[in-house]
Amino acid sequence: MTQNIYDNPDFFAAYARLPRSQDGLEGMPEWPALRALLPSLEDRRVLDLGCGYGWFCRWAREQGAAEIVGLDVSQRMLERAGEMTAPDRIVFRQADLETVELETRRWDLVYSALAFHYIARLDRLFAAVGAALGPGGDFVFSVEHPLYTAPSDPTWLAASDRKVWPLDRYLDEGPRSTDWLAKGVIKHHRTIGTYLGLLLDAGLSIVHVEEWGPTPAQIAAHPEWTVERDRPPFLLIAARR
Amino acid sequence: MTQNIYDNPDFFAAYARLPRSQDGLEGMPEWPALRALLPSLEDRRVLDLGCGYGWFCRWAREQGAAEIVGLDVSQRMLERAGEMTAPDRIVFRQADLETVELETRRWDLVYSALAFHYIARLDRLFAAVGAALGPGGDFVFSVEHPLYTAPSDPTWLAASDRKVWPLDRYLDEGPRSTDWLAKGVIKHHRTIGTYLGLLLDAGLSIVHVEEWGPTPAQIAAHPEWTVERDRPPFLLIAARR
Repeated sequence: MTQNIYDNPDFFAAYARLPRSQDGLEGMPEWPALRALLPSLEDRRVLDLGCGYGWFCRWAREQGAAEIVGLDVSQRMLERAGEMTAPDRIVFRQADLETVELETRRWDLVYSALAFHYIARLDRLFAAVGAALGPGGDFVFSVEHPLYTAPSDPTWLAASDRKVWPLDRYLDEGPRSTDWLAKGVIKHHRTIGTYLGLLLDAGLSIVHVEEWGPTPAQIAAHPEWTVERDRPPFLLIAARR
Repeated sequence: MTQNIYDNPDFFAAYARLPRSQDGLEGMPEWPALRALLPSLEDRRVLDLGCGYGWFCRWAREQGAAEIVGLDVSQRMLERAGEMTAPDRIVFRQADLETVELETRRWDLVYSALAFHYIARLDRLFAAVGAALGPGGDFVFSVEHPLYTAPSDPTWLAASDRKVWPLDRYLDEGPRSTDWLAKGVIKHHRTIGTYLGLLLDAGLSIVHVEEWGPTPAQIAAHPEWTVERDRPPFLLIAARR
């Protein structure tokens, strides 16, 4: 079973205070770039892997999706999602993405935001996604950028006249223990090359790869985000069956 | 015209002393990984962009390629290549990759090793390569990894208990002036996402993306290469029309 950090009360409480938790999609600075990778959802069948509070599932319904399933390992997250969501066209279900079985040729879009870096067996999951998409189906997801997950000590370092990101262990893939929101959160570091290789192995074509950083307008509004252009925080990928 | 650093006498003399200049393909530690991305060359037509001394062109001939053209901006490199190479099936020609015109649907393989990070107008060149490949044709190349080209000061930095690579400016694409082998060599930094986007824009499919670092056997033979796994030096890409 995957580490279920979201059911740790301390983590859950801290997570609930993040802008992306309180403000939903509008609280995610990378959302406009991720949204730009999505196909039209009108009458489409949509699967969200790691749906959290269900923000994306509700947005997909507003876009006219015919059927939406949100999966998450966290019972707490699913309860909150259920409280906020009328059941029309949306089902939230508990599932461990390490072992989940997906019906074949079932979905037009598989979406995931910032979940896959918690998954150890991503080869297995991507193969399942490849089989679960219908022909021409889209797979759009974000993960923490490998530059974010790689370092032994992922904190900015003062160099002579500037701050630098102390990169090491980039090619050393595997688990990393971090103290983000709670002690000992396990993330799985993998390179961009590995993410793309897993998609190709799953029989998918690469459509778009974006190493996301804040736009000039976002930096004007949040000057403290300037450093995020020195080391991009998120990787956005679109693939197609 | 592209910066032609290879015709700078100091640079040329220093370059000539590198293992990859003296020992050819066997002096390139990334060669086995790059070779693994190549199709069979038997009876194929092969174009090498930035052919240097012509090591790859001669190897392609040994593999049975029917016709091989090596282009390079450096007249000195081409003279050396010509001295070392019998003319059978190989032509070396002077060309500026910033402006070169390529015949359409002419080649089965376009290859390039460590040349494209010197090119400013890579969008133009990749579009030309896309048009120059026949259907099913392969485009295989290496560049310096963006992590290598990004930093303001690309030298290892001593952190508390280890060396780190002082990453900054990763998303700040454009020219970088470095002092590799000679003063003021201009390289063009672009992200992995940008390289892949240019290939997709040129109508090519992504086949393989590899962030290359030395193997355990190579590190055993060259312990000083250990840090190259902390920050990969090369990016290898295979695409197909």
